[in-house]
Amino acid sequence: MKPLNALSIRCDGGSVRLLDQQALPDEERWVDATDPDAMIAAIQALKVRGAPAIGVSAAICLALLAERGASTEALRACAARLRAARPTAVNLMWAMDRLTALLDRPDAAAAVVAETEALFHEDVALCDAMAERGAALIQDGEDVLTHCNTGALATAGVGTALGAIGRAWAQGKRVHVWVDETRPLLQGGRLTAWELGRLGVPCTLITDSTAAMLMAQGRVQRVLLGADRIAANGDFANKIGTYGVAVAAAHHGVPFHVVAPWTTVDPDCPDGAHIPIEERDPAEVRGAAGAFGAVRWAPAAASVYNPAFDVTPAALVTSLVLDSGVYDRAALQAGVLRTLPRRGP
Amino acid sequence: MKPLNALSIRCDGGSVRLLDQQALPDEERWVDATDPDAMIAAIQALKVRGAPAIGVSAAICLALLAERGASTEALRACAARLRAARPTAVNLMWAMDRLTALLDRPDAAAAVVAETEALFHEDVALCDAMAERGAALIQDGEDVLTHCNTGALATAGVGTALGAIGRAWAQGKRVHVWVDETRPLLQGGRLTAWELGRLGVPCTLITDSTAAMLMAQGRVQRVLLGADRIAANGDFANKIGTYGVAVAAAHHGVPFHVVAPWTTVDPDCPDGAHIPIEERDPAEVRGAAGAFGAVRWAPAAASVYNPAFDVTPAALVTSLVLDSGVYDRAALQAGVLRTLPRRGP
Repeated sequence: MKPLNALSIRCDGGSVRLLDQQALPDEERWVDATDPDAMIAAIQALKVRGAPAIGVSAAICLALLAERGASTEALRACAARLRAARPTAVNLMWAMDRLTALLDRPDAAAAVVAETEALFHEDVALCDAMAERGAALIQDGEDVLTHCNTGALATAGVGTALGAIGRAWAQGKRVHVWVDETRPLLQGGRLTAWELGRLGVPCTLITDSTAAMLMAQGRVQRVLLGADRIAANGDFANKIGTYGVAVAAAHHGVPFHVVAPWTTVDPDCPDGAHIPIEERDPAEVRGAAGAFGAVRWAPAAASVYNPAFDVTPAALVTSLVLDSGVYDRAALQAGVLRTLPRRGP
Repeated sequence: MKPLNALSIRCDGGSVRLLDQQALPDEERWVDATDPDAMIAAIQALKVRGAPAIGVSAAICLALLAERGASTEALRACAARLRAARPTAVNLMWAMDRLTALLDRPDAAAAVVAETEALFHEDVALCDAMAERGAALIQDGEDVLTHCNTGALATAGVGTALGAIGRAWAQGKRVHVWVDETRPLLQGGRLTAWELGRLGVPCTLITDSTAAMLMAQGRVQRVLLGADRIAANGDFANKIGTYGVAVAAAHHGVPFHVVAPWTTVDPDCPDGAHIPIEERDPAEVRGAAGAFGAVRWAPAAASVYNPAFDVTPAALVTSLVLDSGVYDRAALQAGVLRTLPRRGP
């Protein structure tokens, strides 16, 4: 396998390491995830996160296993286990399906490796296409609000929504970013603030519940954020809190854009009600934990509801920025996502 | 001075101690705040919090100083310093003004002590009146969402919004409470979860950004929360995040009630735009700190915007529950708050 390098994924051809996103921003710690058990654990512990990055990482893991001569049965079983590591990420399922479809071929190992390399480079190209289309929406001088982390850490390329914001900045537009901290796992506070700082893009960290007030004050001109899964009717699942941002944006007439690759679209999922929502460990809400330490501030026995995602209806989306084009609410509601070709740019 | 005891305030007649709300829920630690410098520090560090509790605590501190024979000038200077300890809490200003108005009397010390005792017992009565009126709005079987902490910890009595919820429960209504954790200082996760647990009221802790999703799912029948300051037109300031809850409640047609004593109404403040908003330490958003420990998860140099409060317009309020009555949006917008007598029940 050829070496593949992204901000958070490094494959030297024989092993794959992940930049532990739980250890950022204070420490850049790389963990080996060549072994499928280690990869599954890394996915579940969110050491690798972001729908495209998860799909690419799992594919590399399977390809390396194939190259080490694993049997078709072992590869199939491993793909099934990787596929189930996170229930909402459609890219992961799609990447595994794309690779397992090759397992009956006589040159299965070589085919899986070649397909994984293609998948990686496709993601880089997808990010570039989204960044160009998304950046074109952002006007000079705008304050853009984002939620969670959708940057280079989340993909093999420059990212989705954050890639577009970074591209606008690189084009010379004066952009300032409001970064939702994104409780409970604080991907905004930990990762987006780190990535924007690294890029030199002016940004200000806020608690999630500050976003609506900023909109009321006219201090947010645009929202750009990502998606974990998009249904055929344009409804989409994304990090918990996205829906509240969408409701507030609609209330204040702030344009609300979803930036995602076509691989995030699930044409077999008719609408948001059919997207399964993962519930996570109550301990995440009773406190906060990571490489930065572990604290619990709520009563140890407090009941908790901790959904990882929420669903935003297409009716609240100004436009969906795919790599292949920008689709407005009317187009989404008219069913454009059912007609898109299932391929990249 | 006679002994005065509330859930978070204990005055034995010669000294005053506060239940350190930064140390809850794991530890019930009492701190002496008899000395005005200690009281000011406790107010600023949110060891005592909740607009009514702050006003009552500061009054007790001043009354004890008067009883120890401080000069009129010293009392006036101390009242001014206490009054300025937190800029948004109108109860604090009002309590100080009520006491300083007595300082020219020959029996100033005795008058200040008597007025402080009256203020304490009035707050207990105000809470009872609000609890009755608020509880009457809550129907059997409802899921009620609340933000921040508005319970006995925040007042001399049973609290405001949380007092009403607790009263509904005590009346035998089956109530379940969604508790917003209330970043950045986590008053919901630390204090409201603790108080409801203590009362035995079923409750579930959520991140602030989960509230909108629950409303979309039809799992919130009513919102009850407090206010730090209410303008004459019904606009009000409350803990950051209140406005986002109000926008989401309006979007989903969920009744949104503000429960507060008449002392929170500032008839000299025409509207929300005239309420000063306190900005707090960026470190509160870069991490979390308290008796539970201190962690920082964001980059140490991250820029932060950390307003303590936001302003919700009266147009989003279903009704304002004062001790003196329940006023709906139309009444608020017609100016009812300008006509209310400035006295308790």
